[in-house]
Amino acid sequence: MAEFLNLLPPEEARHRWLQALEHHTAAERIATAQALHRITAEAVLSPHPVPPFNRAEVDGYAVRASDTYAASEGLPVYLHVIAEVPMGKAPLFQVLPGQAALIHTGGMVPMGANAVVMVEHTQRISESEVEILRPVSVGEGLILAGEDMEKGQVVVPAGTRLRAPEIGALMALGITEVRVARKPLVGILSTGDEVIPPEQKPEPGQVRDVNSYTTAAVVQQCGGEPLRYGIVPDDREALQRRLRDALDACDMVVITAGSSASVRDMTAEVINSLGAPGVLVHGVNTKPGRPTILGIVNGKPIAGLPGNPVSALINAWLFVKPAIEQLQGLDHPRPTPLLRARLRTNLASEAGREDWWPVRLHRTEDGWEAEPLHYKSNLIFKLAEADGLLKVPADATGLEAGALAEVMLWE
Amino acid sequence: MAEFLNLLPPEEARHRWLQALEHHTAAERIATAQALHRITAEAVLSPHPVPPFNRAEVDGYAVRASDTYAASEGLPVYLHVIAEVPMGKAPLFQVLPGQAALIHTGGMVPMGANAVVMVEHTQRISESEVEILRPVSVGEGLILAGEDMEKGQVVVPAGTRLRAPEIGALMALGITEVRVARKPLVGILSTGDEVIPPEQKPEPGQVRDVNSYTTAAVVQQCGGEPLRYGIVPDDREALQRRLRDALDACDMVVITAGSSASVRDMTAEVINSLGAPGVLVHGVNTKPGRPTILGIVNGKPIAGLPGNPVSALINAWLFVKPAIEQLQGLDHPRPTPLLRARLRTNLASEAGREDWWPVRLHRTEDGWEAEPLHYKSNLIFKLAEADGLLKVPADATGLEAGALAEVMLWE
Repeated sequence: MAEFLNLLPPEEARHRWLQALEHHTAAERIATAQALHRITAEAVLSPHPVPPFNRAEVDGYAVRASDTYAASEGLPVYLHVIAEVPMGKAPLFQVLPGQAALIHTGGMVPMGANAVVMVEHTQRISESEVEILRPVSVGEGLILAGEDMEKGQVVVPAGTRLRAPEIGALMALGITEVRVARKPLVGILSTGDEVIPPEQKPEPGQVRDVNSYTTAAVVQQCGGEPLRYGIVPDDREALQRRLRDALDACDMVVITAGSSASVRDMTAEVINSLGAPGVLVHGVNTKPGRPTILGIVNGKPIAGLPGNPVSALINAWLFVKPAIEQLQGLDHPRPTPLLRARLRTNLASEAGREDWWPVRLHRTEDGWEAEPLHYKSNLIFKLAEADGLLKVPADATGLEAGALAEVMLWE
Repeated sequence: MAEFLNLLPPEEARHRWLQALEHHTAAERIATAQALHRITAEAVLSPHPVPPFNRAEVDGYAVRASDTYAASEGLPVYLHVIAEVPMGKAPLFQVLPGQAALIHTGGMVPMGANAVVMVEHTQRISESEVEILRPVSVGEGLILAGEDMEKGQVVVPAGTRLRAPEIGALMALGITEVRVARKPLVGILSTGDEVIPPEQKPEPGQVRDVNSYTTAAVVQQCGGEPLRYGIVPDDREALQRRLRDALDACDMVVITAGSSASVRDMTAEVINSLGAPGVLVHGVNTKPGRPTILGIVNGKPIAGLPGNPVSALINAWLFVKPAIEQLQGLDHPRPTPLLRARLRTNLASEAGREDWWPVRLHRTEDGWEAEPLHYKSNLIFKLAEADGLLKVPADATGLEAGALAEVMLWE
């Protein structure tokens, strides 16, 4: 098992792989209303200032601030009310010294006025006159044109994953179409003579194909478009042919390989036979998951995941997710929702290896507690019971009960 | 502003509303491969035991454990090798006392054998004979039929949101179709004379419709199917007509109401006019967000969100999300990914009110730090810059720099 002589830490493996990846999917223009979770292909700039005019922030009177400096409750300033600012229209008049105009929140501050006195600090004494009971400074009670957003300012940088707030910001500016990266098409192959489609009944020694479907789910969650290429027998020519087809058609390929070392070696050899640079990483120091293969052929990334369904799933999160994001040019990844939880029991681990344990989470007064789920063999059922996976860092020789650890939640 | 005399804490508001909600969407049968994030409408049971037979967990020799009890490195036990268990087939022979059969991982343990000795603890001395160098106990080296999953055992309970691990578990059992709750259809109305479609250019005093689109994004993320009913003017008849249409066609309706108290009161009155029990909550003690209305008409939930885009978004997360989940019968909500972060600066707050502050997160050696983003008016742009919202609990009169707080991440 030559590949295990050189196990890389996951961070380093990911770095070595993605650093060599230059392929990006093309851009396409779509409706902003349909763009949730897509990644921007270019910076989106504000087409106009926001607000587009000086806007009242309160209900009150638009005034020249200097007219109010002497005002107090005991000795109010009297101003001449010349008009009411119409809502939804630009005022056609100007506020001169000694004058005021009634204005409502959101209204356009008329020329001449440079502040708005809140209605609470005024007393209307007649149709044409108002008492000002407090002084205001220049700019008080209004928002200057361009104060929220200048014309040409970046609203959403390139490489941003669009969430509800970004969609709202674009709509607020009337940007109803947006250029985003095309969803990467990800080909998925399962290999193994013993693997059969899930709808068939396994004979002894056969197992149903789980990995094609869990991998497809991960691809879908990460913004990719999964395309299943089915099950390939443990045959070099067959694997080579199917992999070449998938590489031609897709932006990326994920193979879940058989569990024996010879099949893994064959996968690596086939990847190398298809083009440069070929395999870049062969073996990653995680549990579960060691026999992961990461390569690039003709600019397109290929991930060979272990055949064990749980190893495949964990390594899909660790490697397939960031690759799909990079293919779309994601440049500002948001923090991943790792929960911090206190371990309920001791967990043993080998130093130098990053372990991921299925845990159930419990809410307590002091935060979260993680209960490790123990399992014998078919961990996929345990994983379905788990809220997430607890990370035992590579530099730890296990964690003690009560220790704080990070938990990756399945979405 | 009568509604504000009786502001409820968000927890209590949510409870009062959802407790009165009995409507569920109907179930439908779909392909498991297409069921990511759907919610099961019934418990899924295992159709057969897993493994379906006693299965070797290691490469080695299937034996009767009692034959090995005397074995040691110095004084091995000699057993007669009668056959090799074929992969992918049931063995047609039986292991008798004094006998052993070569078996590979995953192979079916033959009748008579009740343990498997690892190949590392054996020495094959001839075609027909093997030395056993260590004793094994009954059950060692194998997984009993049904040990992972008994026939009829619950694989996925009813009301579970399907993630990749559940999809894998179902596929492993050959369950390629699954009954899930139909996606709730959620009608979305924006109200306000000043609101215009995003593709139009606003006159002074007009604002573009942001809320229809951010609400639709939240609905989509929570597993609902958004249906936009457009912008309704501040007119009682018009609102009543459009709301009745939406209620007839959808499982739930969300209205983002105008900002003035009179328009909110009109919304509440129209909801009450359409059927019992009508408005259940009028005003929630959060910032931003106070004028939230929650009601039920003819069994269907209606949420009236504040017109301010940020208030609308936050309250959609607080109220629309759990309602959509309950409409689908979600019974086992997974922990929400709230991050714990240390505040970089002091934050003031009123006691008794739950505040949500937009923050940017920074990774440090000790975990996350939250930098509050300050804003003057058009917070939707700040929200687009934020990684999430930091919660200032209702019982706090603000938080000090260095305090640990919870941050809700936008997905």
